[in-house]
Amino acid sequence: MTARRLPSAGFSITIRVAVTADASAIGRLTTAVGEAGAVVTALDVVDSDQTAIIADLTCDTADAAHADQVVGALEALDGVEVRKVSDRTFLLHLGGKIEVTPKVALRTRDELSRAYTPGVARVCLAIAENPDDARRLTIKRNTVAVVTDGTAVLGLGNLGPAAALPVMEGKAALFKRFAGVDAWPVVLDTQDTDEIVNIVKAIAPAYGGINLEDIAAPRCFEIEARLREMLDIPVFHDDQHGTAICVLAALTNALRVVGKKLADVRVVVSGAGAAGTAIMKLLLRQGVGDLIATDRPGALYRGMPGLNESWQWLADNTNRENFSGDLRGAVRGADVFIGVSAPNLLTGDDIATMAPDSIVFALANPDPEVDPRAAREHAAIVATGRSDQPNQINNVLAFPGVFRGMLDAQARAFTDEMALAAARAIADTVGADKLNASVIVPSVFDARVAPAVAAAVRAVAKGEETVRPGEGLGAEDGFPTDGYHANAAADILRTTVDAPPLLPDPSAQ
Amino acid sequence: MTARRLPSAGFSITIRVAVTADASAIGRLTTAVGEAGAVVTALDVVDSDQTAIIADLTCDTADAAHADQVVGALEALDGVEVRKVSDRTFLLHLGGKIEVTPKVALRTRDELSRAYTPGVARVCLAIAENPDDARRLTIKRNTVAVVTDGTAVLGLGNLGPAAALPVMEGKAALFKRFAGVDAWPVVLDTQDTDEIVNIVKAIAPAYGGINLEDIAAPRCFEIEARLREMLDIPVFHDDQHGTAICVLAALTNALRVVGKKLADVRVVVSGAGAAGTAIMKLLLRQGVGDLIATDRPGALYRGMPGLNESWQWLADNTNRENFSGDLRGAVRGADVFIGVSAPNLLTGDDIATMAPDSIVFALANPDPEVDPRAAREHAAIVATGRSDQPNQINNVLAFPGVFRGMLDAQARAFTDEMALAAARAIADTVGADKLNASVIVPSVFDARVAPAVAAAVRAVAKGEETVRPGEGLGAEDGFPTDGYHANAAADILRTTVDAPPLLPDPSAQ
Repeated sequence: MTARRLPSAGFSITIRVAVTADASAIGRLTTAVGEAGAVVTALDVVDSDQTAIIADLTCDTADAAHADQVVGALEALDGVEVRKVSDRTFLLHLGGKIEVTPKVALRTRDELSRAYTPGVARVCLAIAENPDDARRLTIKRNTVAVVTDGTAVLGLGNLGPAAALPVMEGKAALFKRFAGVDAWPVVLDTQDTDEIVNIVKAIAPAYGGINLEDIAAPRCFEIEARLREMLDIPVFHDDQHGTAICVLAALTNALRVVGKKLADVRVVVSGAGAAGTAIMKLLLRQGVGDLIATDRPGALYRGMPGLNESWQWLADNTNRENFSGDLRGAVRGADVFIGVSAPNLLTGDDIATMAPDSIVFALANPDPEVDPRAAREHAAIVATGRSDQPNQINNVLAFPGVFRGMLDAQARAFTDEMALAAARAIADTVGADKLNASVIVPSVFDARVAPAVAAAVRAVAKGEETVRPGEGLGAEDGFPTDGYHANAAADILRTTVDAPPLLPDPSAQ
Repeated sequence: MTARRLPSAGFSITIRVAVTADASAIGRLTTAVGEAGAVVTALDVVDSDQTAIIADLTCDTADAAHADQVVGALEALDGVEVRKVSDRTFLLHLGGKIEVTPKVALRTRDELSRAYTPGVARVCLAIAENPDDARRLTIKRNTVAVVTDGTAVLGLGNLGPAAALPVMEGKAALFKRFAGVDAWPVVLDTQDTDEIVNIVKAIAPAYGGINLEDIAAPRCFEIEARLREMLDIPVFHDDQHGTAICVLAALTNALRVVGKKLADVRVVVSGAGAAGTAIMKLLLRQGVGDLIATDRPGALYRGMPGLNESWQWLADNTNRENFSGDLRGAVRGADVFIGVSAPNLLTGDDIATMAPDSIVFALANPDPEVDPRAAREHAAIVATGRSDQPNQINNVLAFPGVFRGMLDAQARAFTDEMALAAARAIADTVGADKLNASVIVPSVFDARVAPAVAAAVRAVAKGEETVRPGEGLGAEDGFPTDGYHANAAADILRTTVDAPPLLPDPSAQ
């Protein structure tokens, strides 16, 4: 029941081969690559003479093992010699993915005198007199710290700060690419909650916002809550808030397509860990008809033994009929399935048991909870976190615009009203005339998204607009006023999501 | 005895004026500005009709009070109306002076797949397996943290982290401009030594080097020493090491010009604080003939009451004849004066009492220890920290190239051999045929300096070259092997240097 991974640019390799120069030489190469299941994306002849050709053959493969197979297939050909295999992803990472660029010219003495000494002294004194001027006269105006301790890097786990750096650099690149935000990686060589809080507090003067990233639950919740208390700049945890915004936007449009109201639907969530808990609390606040939380032990229900505090809360506040079976039983008759858990938990046959016009968000990456092609045979709408399927739910739709808006408004906190406004802006970017079962979210490359999100967030921050709670969502009430502190972590843009937590230790109760 | 400050671009203002349109209108403006002592650098007509002209008049002034005088002089003219005064230095600082720029294109899905998920996961795993790969595959390859707690911002004192940010941004811009180094400001909202050490240790994984900056003595010494112990990347305190390198380079060439050897000269240093102590320890190690350290209480001598540990060491190891008078008495007959203290402590007459072919480095900024024009009447060589005088001794000659070399060599520590090599490289950039009393250091815009320094440091780091101690310096021995830990802080590039310490509290002994 495992969906075969498709070749992708993330696993693109360039193979330098020497091949005998006959009429069919190139054809034999590309045929071999194709038969090995890879996709040729480029073929460049590097050198040739009358008897031989040296060529660089670039192809997308499914993963590292598949890349080895492809190389092996070429080596097995008569008259072909593999000279060198380059991994394009590693080549791209050489020397890092971001740089620091002066915005001021330093060509002449005069320019130096203004940007540095002696001129800079007056700017320092102005800020010392009025500290808020730092938001105008320094990088604080436009800069966000992307902070991690490396404990939950992608779905790969606790890799530590150095190994987390490529992700944070990538995030910084996305911030600039999509919203002109300067973001800087802060990867911390400590996993102590107090120390992390103290460090972020200490480095905060240079930043107009803090984006927490890939910090394992439950530490991430405490860190976020304490920093929100302490700092006068917004603290945003993308794994929580970014995910919540994007899922809310997608579900808003999905319900519009099938003509259902949130108050009337039953939702099953697979994965009551970081991401799932975030999504469920949001749905409950939005007045979802019914909700069943599931995780490794099955549906969470009142009376279930061994529940930790978070799961107990879910058991007490979801599952109206106190269903106690497994995931497969839970989805029977449900209107919406949201998976933020693990690959291949369901089959197309399971989706067939859902209510008519069912909605499936199978967000585990790279392998969703159910094969999206199989799910699509039975569900009205299927979304995933994958870029090779329709309806990719991707955090990059939210975080750049959210920070753009907060920085422009010089916001001192991230609020629930901003999250609501951002979700609505994302959803509304897909015009009513464009909306259909395969287009419930805009493309990550849709240039209208970040400006729309930024404008919505800025308006809320500046009090220019009052939020109309739940508008278009079928909900009765607005966002929680105590923030997302209890919510959880998963970045849907990511390769994989956090594995669901193990059954909690009853002795911890 | 105060030298009048000269107009400079650091205090450049643009004044928008409306003036009646007669033939002498513009002339009256520029004459008034000139009579007020400012220098007109640009005059742009913004609008005009048959009766009036609106013009932007840009001029360099000496300081903020002088700028007010200039504006007042224009307002006093008949038929002239001042509309608006803009400070070009503040305009330049709006929004900060550096930005974060992606080095990777993110135009297409494929590019996103390589720079971010799913491709980035493999890079993370590679670094987790071999942490040293971070020096190859992340920003660590080329990035330096510029760390301050804001306790000694320029010569302005303890302004705190936000007010220090414009200086650190400027430093980052210089790093990139002069040596292609990516530098990032880390301004810390704490002045606790332990906490600063822990924070720098925690953020270090993203950086290939640490540049400490504007941290007050004596805290800076302990922070540097502890970080050197802990970290596997170079820790450089520019206020110490950068200054020491530049002064050594300048003195090397000055002695070449006057044909003296370090072992034969007597040096008087004014300012036994951070910068001065650094310079003196270096000169002693290089075998200076004699040295007298002076500070507010006068020359430091054996038997002097109330000396702190650092001053006691100086008293014990300098001042061969145990001179106990004031600065003026100390310079009598001295070959070299080095001031890193306070403005206008000496007159031309004092310089006249020095030995023949005397060398004067009056480095207090913006107002040197002695008016350089007066000093030049009596000394063979005069150097300052000012950009409007010959022989500007400026740290930007050292730090960009030093870090360029250390990063390229993936150095794990900054060593004394690197400092020596850097000083020699700076000195040697001024060819023997170019060397004279007005050119003992290269221009800060001399494009050969940073590459020469980088090559010298890289060679030492890679063990490609053995250092020849004291070559060309007249010294008997090489650099201290225990580093510069006991040295002190002053950035000669700066507007002002640290004020000398108060007479130490005897009860602290």
